[in-house]
Amino acid sequence: MFNKRVKVKDLLASEPTGQEVTVMGWVRGFRNNQFIAVNDGSTNNNIQVVVELGMLDEETQKRITQSASIKAVGTLIASQGKGQKVEVKATSIEILGDCDAEKYPLQLKNRPSLEYLREIAHLRFRTNTFGAVFRVRHALAFAVHKFFNEKGFVYMHTPIVTASDAEGAGEMFRVTTLPFDNPPRNEDGTINFKEDFFGRSTNLTVSGQLEGELAATAFSEIYTFGPTFRAENSNTARHLAEFWMIEPEMAFYDIEDNQNLAEEFIKYLIRHVMEHNREDLEFLTQRLAEEEKQLPQDKRSEMGLIEKLEFVINNDFERITYTEAIDILLQSPAYKKKKFQYEVKWGIDMQSEHERYLVEKHFKKPVIVTGYPKEIKAFYMRQNDDGKTVAAMDILAPGIGEIVGGSQREERLDKLTQRMEEMHIPAEELWWYLDTRRYGTVPHAGFGLGFERMVLFVTGMTNIRDVIAFPRTPKNAEF
Amino acid sequence: MFNKRVKVKDLLASEPTGQEVTVMGWVRGFRNNQFIAVNDGSTNNNIQVVVELGMLDEETQKRITQSASIKAVGTLIASQGKGQKVEVKATSIEILGDCDAEKYPLQLKNRPSLEYLREIAHLRFRTNTFGAVFRVRHALAFAVHKFFNEKGFVYMHTPIVTASDAEGAGEMFRVTTLPFDNPPRNEDGTINFKEDFFGRSTNLTVSGQLEGELAATAFSEIYTFGPTFRAENSNTARHLAEFWMIEPEMAFYDIEDNQNLAEEFIKYLIRHVMEHNREDLEFLTQRLAEEEKQLPQDKRSEMGLIEKLEFVINNDFERITYTEAIDILLQSPAYKKKKFQYEVKWGIDMQSEHERYLVEKHFKKPVIVTGYPKEIKAFYMRQNDDGKTVAAMDILAPGIGEIVGGSQREERLDKLTQRMEEMHIPAEELWWYLDTRRYGTVPHAGFGLGFERMVLFVTGMTNIRDVIAFPRTPKNAEF
Repeated sequence: MFNKRVKVKDLLASEPTGQEVTVMGWVRGFRNNQFIAVNDGSTNNNIQVVVELGMLDEETQKRITQSASIKAVGTLIASQGKGQKVEVKATSIEILGDCDAEKYPLQLKNRPSLEYLREIAHLRFRTNTFGAVFRVRHALAFAVHKFFNEKGFVYMHTPIVTASDAEGAGEMFRVTTLPFDNPPRNEDGTINFKEDFFGRSTNLTVSGQLEGELAATAFSEIYTFGPTFRAENSNTARHLAEFWMIEPEMAFYDIEDNQNLAEEFIKYLIRHVMEHNREDLEFLTQRLAEEEKQLPQDKRSEMGLIEKLEFVINNDFERITYTEAIDILLQSPAYKKKKFQYEVKWGIDMQSEHERYLVEKHFKKPVIVTGYPKEIKAFYMRQNDDGKTVAAMDILAPGIGEIVGGSQREERLDKLTQRMEEMHIPAEELWWYLDTRRYGTVPHAGFGLGFERMVLFVTGMTNIRDVIAFPRTPKNAEF
Repeated sequence: MFNKRVKVKDLLASEPTGQEVTVMGWVRGFRNNQFIAVNDGSTNNNIQVVVELGMLDEETQKRITQSASIKAVGTLIASQGKGQKVEVKATSIEILGDCDAEKYPLQLKNRPSLEYLREIAHLRFRTNTFGAVFRVRHALAFAVHKFFNEKGFVYMHTPIVTASDAEGAGEMFRVTTLPFDNPPRNEDGTINFKEDFFGRSTNLTVSGQLEGELAATAFSEIYTFGPTFRAENSNTARHLAEFWMIEPEMAFYDIEDNQNLAEEFIKYLIRHVMEHNREDLEFLTQRLAEEEKQLPQDKRSEMGLIEKLEFVINNDFERITYTEAIDILLQSPAYKKKKFQYEVKWGIDMQSEHERYLVEKHFKKPVIVTGYPKEIKAFYMRQNDDGKTVAAMDILAPGIGEIVGGSQREERLDKLTQRMEEMHIPAEELWWYLDTRRYGTVPHAGFGLGFERMVLFVTGMTNIRDVIAFPRTPKNAEF
């Protein structure tokens, strides 16, 4: 058995008992041929391993370079130096793996840019920034499951490969085993997808919602947490071709219940990270502050990262209707000074500049907007009695924009099929979806939270490529 | 606000306080125009709602059919009937959604077969069997995250769409936005994948392991839990084209540490379900026993489901080498009586019949087999000093076969590249993977647990299509 090591995080929290411990990790620094800073990814902090002068031969000393891996055995004692309670007084040092400093692409001294680190995404986890980001991402993911488990929701794995292209949520990727050269064709010359693996044309899912609704009509409350895909050619800091989404779906919820759940959920996630990843958040707060120093005063955040998160969990989200949102925009100084690039009037699909105005300038906190015009929303959203709007809700977050999109679903079969007809959505393809309205239909609602956008919000990172391990974007599927 | 209901599970656990409660759910039965059995999916048990004679008009009575959805308000009182502590004495009943008994495809009275239920997978969650299966599946998924979170592992979302086809784990699905009609071609006539969405040829992942290893060389201990894909035309009760896999990857672990972790993990999952889903397991135990009554005596399980699970958590897994396994097979009565269809000799890739013999006849418990011939295992497995075997491990479970596959990974750059050459695996495509061996390489190990196979094992279901919501198999991507 090899693994008797103690994690650096646990060592740093220990008392200097003088007991023998084994540390394994990667070298972050080596000072005076005496002090090795060792990191194992359990925390951004390093344990100091102290080597007595003369203990190592010159050859070994030279091999203790940044990112070399070592095994150190020694006693855990009170640290003589500043900044740490304990250190390891080494009795033996073993080099597990060398790291040639000349060739190593990740030179921390040079403060590599985030752009450069994306090119070496396989190594960037070894930096403090990405260490913190991915530990926070982990904590957020765990909190998602913990939240829903405590509430008795059932986790559903909805299909990734689907034949359904009826939702119209965006461009899709084809999944196929047919050859491009000489694919099987029907008599009329079209491709014969009956010969494809699944016996029909299939795509990567854009959402697990419709399948989630099926399960909600049996378990009452379910959620999904899985990858979703958009084949959109958008190269922005907020879009990925492959991203993870959480989609709870609840029977017996109306749009107000839906808002309550979403707000409680977001606050729960933030609170969990505040409790479990304080060190990481402190690091990320400082990182953001330093990055923003390079911006002009008026582009900097008004609050630090932790301050912002505390503000969000301690205040109610603003709740307004779409109609109210449009009125606020029309009354705004920004509108009067013609600062909006896009038109503002009832009926528009609000642009990023409008959402940011509402969230960042007007309310200065997360805003839940409900009651959108039916023309700009999906077919399954419940029609309000006014005949013009649907029971949709978007949650807009400062610096991020839309973080949640949801709605009460149309549970009335006649209203639903009528809307599908109007929107040219083929009912025969969705027979199973309509069955839930035929057999014991119930009022129900749900929403989708873009997981990476939530990670952006909590980490203060600004490019979505920096909060997923190996981002998939147009022309990029490296690693 | 709509959702003030109390879940059936919570009601059934309550004392008969006489307080007013709201129940919502689907009708499972209606007896004597008086007793409505209501289920909301929180448990297989129903709450009895008692209607005073004369309270409902005839029209409403007729609408209380199986799977109609209702809202009942009433007082929670001690039950007069057998089998339940409490019931709801209704003060009002509202039909939320009708269910036409004539047309409803799910007639529970007819004891629909599992095969038929697969055709109406969107409704099968409403049966006791699938209610129990999917609540257990949820509990297992939650336990996965809880286990690793408690140990400080970092959850990684590895890419679903990959350009890497180097692992050779099986046939892959192409992901593309190119058209079949007139796809862009290079001068030599081959397809020009530079024009595809990701600027190269891409597939659905068969495993997150290689990317997981990258993260493990920074965080030490990570795990993945995501969908994986095989475009294999195998229509068996154990194969899916889309399935979920858990892949932990640990720096500073050798093959023994790897075995210890896998065994602890599997036991933890089972223990979690035993604690949290007792009712569901009792139902599934009975279901299995009834199903097996139809089998000849010698085909029935020796233990009941719960008994089997208790046995697994209370006993050490058997640990043997591949060489020992082959010896056992060669010494077996089955071999001597020529009962094996496939050849037995050192070097074979053991067939299902061999694995089942070891697990079900010889040891009668889970078995961990290590030290497989290198020829039948993947390039990344660590070469043992004998020059013939690699530090691989498979865990074989009764009734399931291989449930875990793993290995210590080859951390030595020279050995790894040599093996890649021998196996014609292009090193230039895996430059990022090899970098982990170039820069601070560490001994490390990991394994993959097929999640659906684990759900099969714990629920006693026998077809993998019955433990995932909407199975994807050859010629089938319905829902």
